[in-house]
Amino acid sequence: MCAHSQQVSSPLSDEELRRLDAHWRAANYLSVGQIYLTSNPLLTEPLRAEHVKPRLLGHWGTSPGLNLVYTHLNRLVRSRGLEALCIWGPGHGGPAVVANSWLEGSYTETYPDITRDAAGMARLFRQFSFPGGVPSHVAPETPGSIHEGGELGYALSHAYGAAFDNPGLLVTCVIGDGEAETGPLAASWHSNKFLDPVRDGAVLPILHLNGYKIANPTVLSRLPESELDELLKGYGHEPIHVTGDEPAAVHRAMAQAMDTAADRIAAVQRAVREEGETERPRWPMIVLRTPKGWTGPAEVDGLPVEGTWRAHQVPLSAVRDNPDHLRQLEEWLLSYRPHELFDEHGAPRPDVLTCVPDGARRLGSTPHANGGLLVRELPLPPLERFAVPVDKPGATLHEPTRVLGDLLEYIMRETADRRDFRVVGPDETASNRLQAVYGASGKAWQARTLDVDEHLDRHGRVMEILSEHTCQGWLEGYLLTGRHGLFSCYEAFVHIVDSMVNQHIKWLRVTRRLPWRAPIASLNYLLTSHVWRQDHNGFSHQDPGFVDHILNKSPEAVRVYLPPDANTLLSVADHALRSRDYVNVIVAGKQPCFDWLTMEEARVHCARGAGIWDWAGTEDGTREPDVVLACAGDVPTQEVLAAAQLLRHHLPELAVRVVNVVDIARLLPSEEHPHGMSDFEYDGLFTPDKPVVFAYHGYPWLIHRLAYRRTGHQHLHVRGYKEMGTTTTPFDMVVRNDLDRYRLVMDVIDRVPGLAVRAAAVRQGMEDTRLRHHAYIREHGVDLPEVADWTWDG
Amino acid sequence: MCAHSQQVSSPLSDEELRRLDAHWRAANYLSVGQIYLTSNPLLTEPLRAEHVKPRLLGHWGTSPGLNLVYTHLNRLVRSRGLEALCIWGPGHGGPAVVANSWLEGSYTETYPDITRDAAGMARLFRQFSFPGGVPSHVAPETPGSIHEGGELGYALSHAYGAAFDNPGLLVTCVIGDGEAETGPLAASWHSNKFLDPVRDGAVLPILHLNGYKIANPTVLSRLPESELDELLKGYGHEPIHVTGDEPAAVHRAMAQAMDTAADRIAAVQRAVREEGETERPRWPMIVLRTPKGWTGPAEVDGLPVEGTWRAHQVPLSAVRDNPDHLRQLEEWLLSYRPHELFDEHGAPRPDVLTCVPDGARRLGSTPHANGGLLVRELPLPPLERFAVPVDKPGATLHEPTRVLGDLLEYIMRETADRRDFRVVGPDETASNRLQAVYGASGKAWQARTLDVDEHLDRHGRVMEILSEHTCQGWLEGYLLTGRHGLFSCYEAFVHIVDSMVNQHIKWLRVTRRLPWRAPIASLNYLLTSHVWRQDHNGFSHQDPGFVDHILNKSPEAVRVYLPPDANTLLSVADHALRSRDYVNVIVAGKQPCFDWLTMEEARVHCARGAGIWDWAGTEDGTREPDVVLACAGDVPTQEVLAAAQLLRHHLPELAVRVVNVVDIARLLPSEEHPHGMSDFEYDGLFTPDKPVVFAYHGYPWLIHRLAYRRTGHQHLHVRGYKEMGTTTTPFDMVVRNDLDRYRLVMDVIDRVPGLAVRAAAVRQGMEDTRLRHHAYIREHGVDLPEVADWTWDG
Repeated sequence: MCAHSQQVSSPLSDEELRRLDAHWRAANYLSVGQIYLTSNPLLTEPLRAEHVKPRLLGHWGTSPGLNLVYTHLNRLVRSRGLEALCIWGPGHGGPAVVANSWLEGSYTETYPDITRDAAGMARLFRQFSFPGGVPSHVAPETPGSIHEGGELGYALSHAYGAAFDNPGLLVTCVIGDGEAETGPLAASWHSNKFLDPVRDGAVLPILHLNGYKIANPTVLSRLPESELDELLKGYGHEPIHVTGDEPAAVHRAMAQAMDTAADRIAAVQRAVREEGETERPRWPMIVLRTPKGWTGPAEVDGLPVEGTWRAHQVPLSAVRDNPDHLRQLEEWLLSYRPHELFDEHGAPRPDVLTCVPDGARRLGSTPHANGGLLVRELPLPPLERFAVPVDKPGATLHEPTRVLGDLLEYIMRETADRRDFRVVGPDETASNRLQAVYGASGKAWQARTLDVDEHLDRHGRVMEILSEHTCQGWLEGYLLTGRHGLFSCYEAFVHIVDSMVNQHIKWLRVTRRLPWRAPIASLNYLLTSHVWRQDHNGFSHQDPGFVDHILNKSPEAVRVYLPPDANTLLSVADHALRSRDYVNVIVAGKQPCFDWLTMEEARVHCARGAGIWDWAGTEDGTREPDVVLACAGDVPTQEVLAAAQLLRHHLPELAVRVVNVVDIARLLPSEEHPHGMSDFEYDGLFTPDKPVVFAYHGYPWLIHRLAYRRTGHQHLHVRGYKEMGTTTTPFDMVVRNDLDRYRLVMDVIDRVPGLAVRAAAVRQGMEDTRLRHHAYIREHGVDLPEVADWTWDG
Repeated sequence: MCAHSQQVSSPLSDEELRRLDAHWRAANYLSVGQIYLTSNPLLTEPLRAEHVKPRLLGHWGTSPGLNLVYTHLNRLVRSRGLEALCIWGPGHGGPAVVANSWLEGSYTETYPDITRDAAGMARLFRQFSFPGGVPSHVAPETPGSIHEGGELGYALSHAYGAAFDNPGLLVTCVIGDGEAETGPLAASWHSNKFLDPVRDGAVLPILHLNGYKIANPTVLSRLPESELDELLKGYGHEPIHVTGDEPAAVHRAMAQAMDTAADRIAAVQRAVREEGETERPRWPMIVLRTPKGWTGPAEVDGLPVEGTWRAHQVPLSAVRDNPDHLRQLEEWLLSYRPHELFDEHGAPRPDVLTCVPDGARRLGSTPHANGGLLVRELPLPPLERFAVPVDKPGATLHEPTRVLGDLLEYIMRETADRRDFRVVGPDETASNRLQAVYGASGKAWQARTLDVDEHLDRHGRVMEILSEHTCQGWLEGYLLTGRHGLFSCYEAFVHIVDSMVNQHIKWLRVTRRLPWRAPIASLNYLLTSHVWRQDHNGFSHQDPGFVDHILNKSPEAVRVYLPPDANTLLSVADHALRSRDYVNVIVAGKQPCFDWLTMEEARVHCARGAGIWDWAGTEDGTREPDVVLACAGDVPTQEVLAAAQLLRHHLPELAVRVVNVVDIARLLPSEEHPHGMSDFEYDGLFTPDKPVVFAYHGYPWLIHRLAYRRTGHQHLHVRGYKEMGTTTTPFDMVVRNDLDRYRLVMDVIDRVPGLAVRAAAVRQGMEDTRLRHHAYIREHGVDLPEVADWTWDG
């Protein structure tokens, strides 16, 4: 909302009320029609069983409330010339949002075969929850939506993400009282401490208390109003109540509430933007109490339905078989007086549409809900500017994420005016060594500050709240409205958003099939403070399984990278930040790590995704390897190189190939993933028949799951994390999980046939060193000097 | 807390204060000692670098606050004769809780080598965050704890879980202001609407605002106090504030606050238990504001530390190399005046221990924190009582979860007096068709009720809140304190608790290595409303990946079952409810499903975990199969049986074996999982060399990941869910994912060599039927009659 929006707070005239009600009734009619009808959309003939869908699927309960909000938001947007987006949290009410989009015309513009006439209405009804049709929820298919209404909890964080850096936008967010019980939603109320009233838009939460979930009353609806008000004020809001079940009264109250809220928002924005106010404002919100299933059947089969949980899905469930239900359905539909609402061709009558805004101001047509239309290329620099110099492999050490921090600082600085890039993280940006970014932007913070604070900034674009859910929701909302970002997270705790990322990937997968949805910036994760370096925190902080979770999802939308050093991290980050419509997972350490590749080598290696490091093995172009040492991840790479060095020293006649894998999906067959390798390529790297000892960052069986179809799979031996976690030294972690250099050498000796007799002694030497390690750390609490001081001598 | 606890609200005497302060200083000294010292524990000689650990790991910031709470909780428990348990949410403060346990003697009783003298103190210090020692967090190794302090968010739901059905228990819960920002914690405040003041104990939240997280101020600490109070009152609490940084004043205020809180709790319990009060009480809570790193170095290297985020981990980080840091550390330690606190042998002096309760009342000795000591066998009935009759396979249909509901009702009824069994679920108990359980217990509910409500019960033990996190936290707390339960959840949304179950499994894995921790009841999941039957909800509700997530974890602690019908569900549920120290995942449908096995057959089949269904194939004991059709899960089993029937009809000469797998870990090698099969057994079921077409409930590659080492793996072809989800008919879902009977027949024909020439025509027939299916559902919206009406004719 721009600060110039005029204040229009006069009460509704009777005529306005009549027209708003007509719009609402039309939307209700269309919602019921979608749930029930397959033909006879205008009830031009008496309703018969064959007009009704054979399978009744959908959710009526929340729909009339959503229709009310849509109607009144239309009025607000139109009367004030606002730019608005709405997040429909109770997205089970898919039919409601679709109905409104059809009424306002955005639906037909998006799907031209669903015309705004009787034939189109019939198709609109029939397609709903029908095989090959549209889902029963607000979903990617729904014009104007950036929020799938399936899994609950993320509406409000999505709304804030959309509002960030959109100072002219009003983001309304309907929160169901069911969703309000979830953890992610409960946490996201505090997002208002991170919303900059100058550079960000406004978020107007509408808490819709219809009183029931699937089968239970809701907690918030059963609090005394005074207690609920305390809660909402404690969240930093000033609640405005609208309560009722008599439509005209509710229309009047809702119009008044919307006006009051908009007036207050305008006043807040004027105060901070024009008058220099710096106190955190108390933003308005609306508490809307209307019956669940309002205007639907009051009673079915002798049991109350309207205003109860029984209205959640399909109130009349036996319409094709039970004449009473059929009659009730017809009465219900006719109660909206469809002939007043639609003309004889089925088009909405002009009175119905007076509240509807024009063009891109329609909620179903706003480009903010189709962020790909707005997204711009990020200003990415030549990476050489940030690359670490590498004269020879393994001669220097850098903290990879710290190097990345410099790149992020550049991007943050270059987007200072555009303001379309944010970094989010659960209080871990500095812990993850990305603090260089503060040089270009502080941390968003609107609450009180103290002298001791550092880098807090009312206009900051680094977002830190100790809630992975809120971070994820903010970033999703930001990306879906056409901007860019990165989420840095401790590797183990990113599982907290497993379910959220599921839903985002589903969203991306569906939008890829919708030509009208333009590609958006990818959701980029930097997972660091990873499983191998949790010296402070131990077992509870050790879990590399997010990669497994991600690789279960649609291959077209997921990418996983394990850069082994600083320059490869720069390269994959650059690639990820340029990409569209993916979820990119980058796993990289923050601890000092050997630099293996120059920037140019890193770029080539990352583009290939996997390759032979001939300088690390014994490749001389004349002979096949006796064994392949493969690695993915920074710590496994170091162990593999140390093992290669041990082999070179102890068994110099052995031909060893070292293969490093950055892009883990390369291991998949090409028909399973767009990045997958052909068998020809795979065999070229790994050989079809030689032993492969693969040191992997995460759970070892993931590599088998990716490579099981390969010719040489029976020769593949994988080492990785096998839940042997604890608080211990870095090297002890790899020993406990049998990923250490000595074990890898033993693995090679155990697998390569025909080795020299002295190999047995070499193997024993490795075993002895492992035993020495155990004794040493128990006495000294630090790693063996030969490990701590190890360097690559290749 | 029992209602009879006396009220003791007189202010602290100076002598009491002095003794409490001595206890607190002793705990602080021991906390610092654990973080820094490896020898010279009593500072009997000047501190030198070699007394200091080579690697400094740990978290000081929260420790002094936890020590204050422990000290004052000791006083409260002792003075009132209470039974108390404490959940230490800011569990990074491991040294604090360990220090207090050592002081009270429970540590030495648990670990006899850590004696309460100088030698024991040295071992106590040295072991902390040392390889082979104890973790830096409150963890399973910590006496008196049921809550790992690593991942944040679950303290308060654990506390409520512990309090349920423990009417005599006071569960104090320290919530850090970092943790308070997380979603799960934010949601769990509303647990007080589900706490029965009659049958449950009391929960006393202590919100500890030390102001900072790792690197940022916290949101709640920067709210104006009035706004924070509104929030906490909105959560249903009456806050009592304790603020300060002057120890004596804080001791006085804290003692007073603890007394006031205990008095109010006693008053509430008396009112409801003795005077019949039925209004939901407003429970007290304490808001404790003390500096982060209180009593630690005020400044280090010129920067403020005490009272800032810089105190989070190790305030003096270079003690071995920087003489200034060494001197500061010595001053810091001496500031607690250790010689007043410990005698010349290193034992705590009597004055230090006057606040400590006796015996099992000590927080480190309460049996409630070692629930295995309290757990009793559940009263489980003979399953025949609930079994569905099966005269022949596939002749009848039942909804498996509804049948299970009857069993749960029995258990609920039989535990009506013991009250040690609860069912939790996010508003889905009835949706998951377990509603029979309401016959024995309603749903816990303390908020307002209306006439229209059903099954709400102030004393109910069915727990429904729309927060998977809260459900999970409640159940974990309940199990860890020695009770039983079941979590029923939509399959897709159980990913919401991926990270929580990780932590619970880690807890179980560690406790299995601690002989003093007695085994507790398993955490049992019923995952239903599964991927194949989301007719109402579509893609957003389709995800079978929780099994993959679980199977990445310690094999000793995880079990996964996919019962194919009602009787097998009864059998695995019975097994799960009897088991200890596992996470059991049961995936079972709620839709009508053919009954395949009698109860006796089900029992035998489930005990084996996998077996040949010879009645379903062509087994006659004389010949090897030409092909194995394997299945796991209810829908895949039906498709496999339908495919077997089609093959019998169309290619009667083909020898088909049908193998059903209930216990999915059976597929693993026996050395990888306790339930794994030997190769001999595996080959006996699946053959070493015949094609196996495996229809699996979830992601197909999971089966490969389990079976990749088997001889016949190259002949294994798996069908499963491959993210082809949408809102459609049940059969269309299996067609979209190539799991349908027609595709399975095609798979067989494609893989069995030497089939009759007419096999090609049969294959074409299958293909044609699939095409017909597509056309039919697009026209009618329902499945082909031959599929909808299919029955087993074997």
